[in-house]
Amino acid sequence: RCFNPMQTVTLIPGDGIGPEISTAVMKIFEAAKAPIRWEERNVTAIKGPGGRWMIPPDAKESMDRSKIGLKGPLKTPIAAGHPSMNLLLRKTFDLYANVRPCVSIEGYKTPYTDVNLVTIRENTEGEYSGIEHVIVDGVVQSIKLITEEASRRIAEYAFEYARNNQRTSVTAVHKANIMRMSDGLFLRKCREVAENYKDIKFTEMYLDTVCLNMVQDPTQFDVLVMPNLYGDILSDLCAGLIGGLGVTPSGNIGANGVAIFESVHGTAPDIAGLDMANPTALLLSAIMMLRHMGLHDHGNKIQAACFDTIRDKKVLTKDLGGNSKCSEFTAEICRRIQDLD
Amino acid sequence: RCFNPMQTVTLIPGDGIGPEISTAVMKIFEAAKAPIRWEERNVTAIKGPGGRWMIPPDAKESMDRSKIGLKGPLKTPIAAGHPSMNLLLRKTFDLYANVRPCVSIEGYKTPYTDVNLVTIRENTEGEYSGIEHVIVDGVVQSIKLITEEASRRIAEYAFEYARNNQRTSVTAVHKANIMRMSDGLFLRKCREVAENYKDIKFTEMYLDTVCLNMVQDPTQFDVLVMPNLYGDILSDLCAGLIGGLGVTPSGNIGANGVAIFESVHGTAPDIAGLDMANPTALLLSAIMMLRHMGLHDHGNKIQAACFDTIRDKKVLTKDLGGNSKCSEFTAEICRRIQDLD
Ligand SMILES: CC(C)[C@H](C(=O)O)[C@@H](O)C(=O)O
Ligand SMILES: CC(C)[C@H](C(=O)O)[C@@H](O)C(=O)O
Repeated sequence: RCFNPMQTVTLIPGDGIGPEISTAVMKIFEAAKAPIRWEERNVTAIKGPGGRWMIPPDAKESMDRSKIGLKGPLKTPIAAGHPSMNLLLRKTFDLYANVRPCVSIEGYKTPYTDVNLVTIRENTEGEYSGIEHVIVDGVVQSIKLITEEASRRIAEYAFEYARNNQRTSVTAVHKANIMRMSDGLFLRKCREVAENYKDIKFTEMYLDTVCLNMVQDPTQFDVLVMPNLYGDILSDLCAGLIGGLGVTPSGNIGANGVAIFESVHGTAPDIAGLDMANPTALLLSAIMMLRHMGLHDHGNKIQAACFDTIRDKKVLTKDLGGNSKCSEFTAEICRRIQDLD
Repeated sequence: RCFNPMQTVTLIPGDGIGPEISTAVMKIFEAAKAPIRWEERNVTAIKGPGGRWMIPPDAKESMDRSKIGLKGPLKTPIAAGHPSMNLLLRKTFDLYANVRPCVSIEGYKTPYTDVNLVTIRENTEGEYSGIEHVIVDGVVQSIKLITEEASRRIAEYAFEYARNNQRTSVTAVHKANIMRMSDGLFLRKCREVAENYKDIKFTEMYLDTVCLNMVQDPTQFDVLVMPNLYGDILSDLCAGLIGGLGVTPSGNIGANGVAIFESVHGTAPDIAGLDMANPTALLLSAIMMLRHMGLHDHGNKIQAACFDTIRDKKVLTKDLGGNSKCSEFTAEICRRIQDLD
């Protein structure tokens, strides 16, 4: 482990507080001597030939080369017809799995302790197909599309994730009692894939039952895998259990190692530029990224310094219950990293 | 208020613990001198002419006459092709609104206090249309159907409910950023109806954001209105916040006063017949029923006796944290009702 060639990461600082928290992460990575070379890019969609929205070529090219992105918050586009940037990025790079580890943070009080679960969301189809019609005046249909291939792929990802992350169970979340064919297909693929992972316990549970049990005792869950919309809901719900989007990391994973890690909170324009933002969600996402790249030691060290800082409660940003600036919180984490050496 | 003509209610005791908890409710109603005459019926679906599943004619006839039902848990049918009894009842009587008040119960500890909200779920369409197809091998679609009429009807119900129950705000829950046409239509109807209820504050919120905020601080919510599937999820989530399905009442409301009130927990076959069941959810549903029938004094009295018993913690069933039998818990509530007189 003494030779670490530099690896390139495409950095998408984003809007609002995005640049500040990106700077914080870069400083912390430098303190940890993480062998990362940042390539900064702006992804805000432009109109390409033929009028189709696309991310700018230099951002696309950087991602194609580096395969790994780290992304801050992007503001919601207001131009008519402008696509959601999140959806466009998922589509452009076929990021089929959204992964959110939700782990209670010691010292950051919420109604729950010992939450330690991961939501794995199918990211490409389902209710997000975008296919809708007016049937007759006043009657509209939206189409939820479920395919065998995408269902198998996400199920395989979930079981591989469980195995590679010392997790012991995978729960498939569904409403196959209502959507017998579509959720039925998703569930069947999960069952089939489960056959190949006898070391991982497999269970299936209705989405409503998961929500009910989740708020009563989240510690019963480990890895959860589900179609797109259910993942949208459950990933935010679970983020709420551990303290919200300000402390929850997220990764969007595609084929062949391609991935974008991101903080899923907003751009907080009201405090942008005031050195008050909390970089924790982006930092934890960046730690997920390091692990994804095989840089576990760097990830562990930065994580320890971040969690120690929060547990210690002395230097915290306002939203974490403290009075410190973003730069002070960042410096404290850097100091602890140097102490760990 | 001295003349109370007896009103008939169709009682569907249900399976498992259903008969015991129904008996408990009848005893408590008797102690409270509630002017209700029970007409017991079995609703388990039978095959009608033409092979269509239907509820037995004498049950249908009783409900058509009484307009009001109280229903215990029904076991999930196992016969192939046998419909979900819940769905069949909703359909048979066009019960278009599912209403669940979720109110923290003093003395029954959960991670939350002061929850006081109501979920109002569209009960007839959306993802529950039952329309699904295989497009090609391995590609399945489910159709979510949203109509102007059903959306307006549920929005009107929600605002009327808010006004009649001294509630101050209605939040429409949606994913119109993704399902622009279907959820868009639902949302548009909510906005239109809101125009007629200037006394009620109207807000709109994404489903994922509601879930996130709900587990962080449920006290910010009042009345929530939403399409079918979102209601399925949120109503169970909110039940979890106040202690689960064992303490959560539910009502299914149709046109012209027709309604079925029900406990939404399971049949608990493992403890059926052992005098261990907790009748609270069915009792609270029966109290909703009394209010629906205009019998507020009886409802209030029974509710006070039930909540006093729980707050007092001396005579509780096992699942509520006590050691008492169902019949003892029931007797304690009856005793308190008599004390209130
Ligand atoms: C912004 C929106 C398109 C998105 C979604 O609904 O998927 C968001 O909620 C998310 O989870 O990334
Ligand atoms: C039993 C099932 C059909 C039902 C549903 O999904 O609506 C249940 O979850 C409910 O909420 O009544």
